[in-house]
Amino acid sequence: MQVKVVSNILEANEAHAGVNRQRFKNNRVFVLNLMSSPGSGKTSILERTIDHIKGLLRIGVIEGDIYTAKDAERIGEKGVPVVQINTKGACHLDANMIACALAELPLDQLDLLVIENIGNLVCPAEFDLGEDIKAMVLSVTEGNDKPLKYPLMFREAKALLVNKMDLISFTDFDLDLMEKDIRGINPDGKIFLMSAKTGEGFEAWCRWLYHQVQAKKEKSSVTASG
Amino acid sequence: MQVKVVSNILEANEAHAGVNRQRFKNNRVFVLNLMSSPGSGKTSILERTIDHIKGLLRIGVIEGDIYTAKDAERIGEKGVPVVQINTKGACHLDANMIACALAELPLDQLDLLVIENIGNLVCPAEFDLGEDIKAMVLSVTEGNDKPLKYPLMFREAKALLVNKMDLISFTDFDLDLMEKDIRGINPDGKIFLMSAKTGEGFEAWCRWLYHQVQAKKEKSSVTASG
Repeated sequence: MQVKVVSNILEANEAHAGVNRQRFKNNRVFVLNLMSSPGSGKTSILERTIDHIKGLLRIGVIEGDIYTAKDAERIGEKGVPVVQINTKGACHLDANMIACALAELPLDQLDLLVIENIGNLVCPAEFDLGEDIKAMVLSVTEGNDKPLKYPLMFREAKALLVNKMDLISFTDFDLDLMEKDIRGINPDGKIFLMSAKTGEGFEAWCRWLYHQVQAKKEKSSVTASG
Repeated sequence: MQVKVVSNILEANEAHAGVNRQRFKNNRVFVLNLMSSPGSGKTSILERTIDHIKGLLRIGVIEGDIYTAKDAERIGEKGVPVVQINTKGACHLDANMIACALAELPLDQLDLLVIENIGNLVCPAEFDLGEDIKAMVLSVTEGNDKPLKYPLMFREAKALLVNKMDLISFTDFDLDLMEKDIRGINPDGKIFLMSAKTGEGFEAWCRWLYHQVQAKKEKSSVTASG
């Protein structure tokens, strides 16, 4: 019975996600769903990412939080359009919440929309939002055992941002073991070693992200003219 | 409709939790539900806690993980009875999972049962397992903004273990602000500043926990003889 209920919720979400995906395609906007545990550094990474590429791409942000608008305020200071979703207790964003938030964004004037999901390593991975790619953050202070303990999100992420590299020497985080575990469940995911504090790794990450956005634009141009 | 479904699941859980609670009472075992984000250090704290008080109390552990038995193996090395629950995707432990795990534990020979919940700052707080108290871990590397962003768990925790204090000087974690935020939602919760790496704070935490366990035993003796 419970499985049935969950399956219906996911099916309904899938339908909403399909509508979102078509809308993103029509507007030629690339959408990144950014996920992680609480406190891994999603917002800090996003702040630096915006600094790096806002000269190249028009960026918008949807901030997901259970309560508070703290993260949206931080992103708003970067001078990009941002919408806060407060789920009031719910542990993940779903496609319908995104559809509602889109009404507040100038979608046709954006190249890249970043959705910062609820801090939760489990539930958000199950809900398609209509995004082009999922990326996730793992901070080294969380430990290298997370990929095998929370495999769904690590499997689905097209990019893994290993954050807080400035602290790695104070931890027992084993990069080789983590990479081996990741490769066992996600052979093609890109791994970026980063620090939102020092800026390490942002050039490579932002270059890769820029190329993802451009690739979608080129593909949709071909489709439109073909 | 969705609200109704969720409410039914929580009601069913409440009934199972009541049965667990009576069983714990009959066996005079004190039960601690330990919660946090992934990678805050629940298992490391538990390892040190066992080292500190296994001479005083008979301890058993239920380890909750989505996949793997890594944590149960770590705890098993401490020489205490441990049962692993693998939820296979589910984001929290529920009271029925605990009821099943209890069949594998010598409950009448324990003073303290610790349930290490799934690493998730959201969902586990909603599910009563029949425990005597909830405690939670927040590591300083996660940031001091977590109490207001995830208030339910911080409100319900009778003890907050602030872990990784050995790293605080490398972060911008503001202890005063965190305490102020906690006091706004949970005026009576005990706060322990700790490091599972250095051992800081364990004496105070273990003394407090020991007294909680003894208080339940004394209360149940009075009830039994009264």
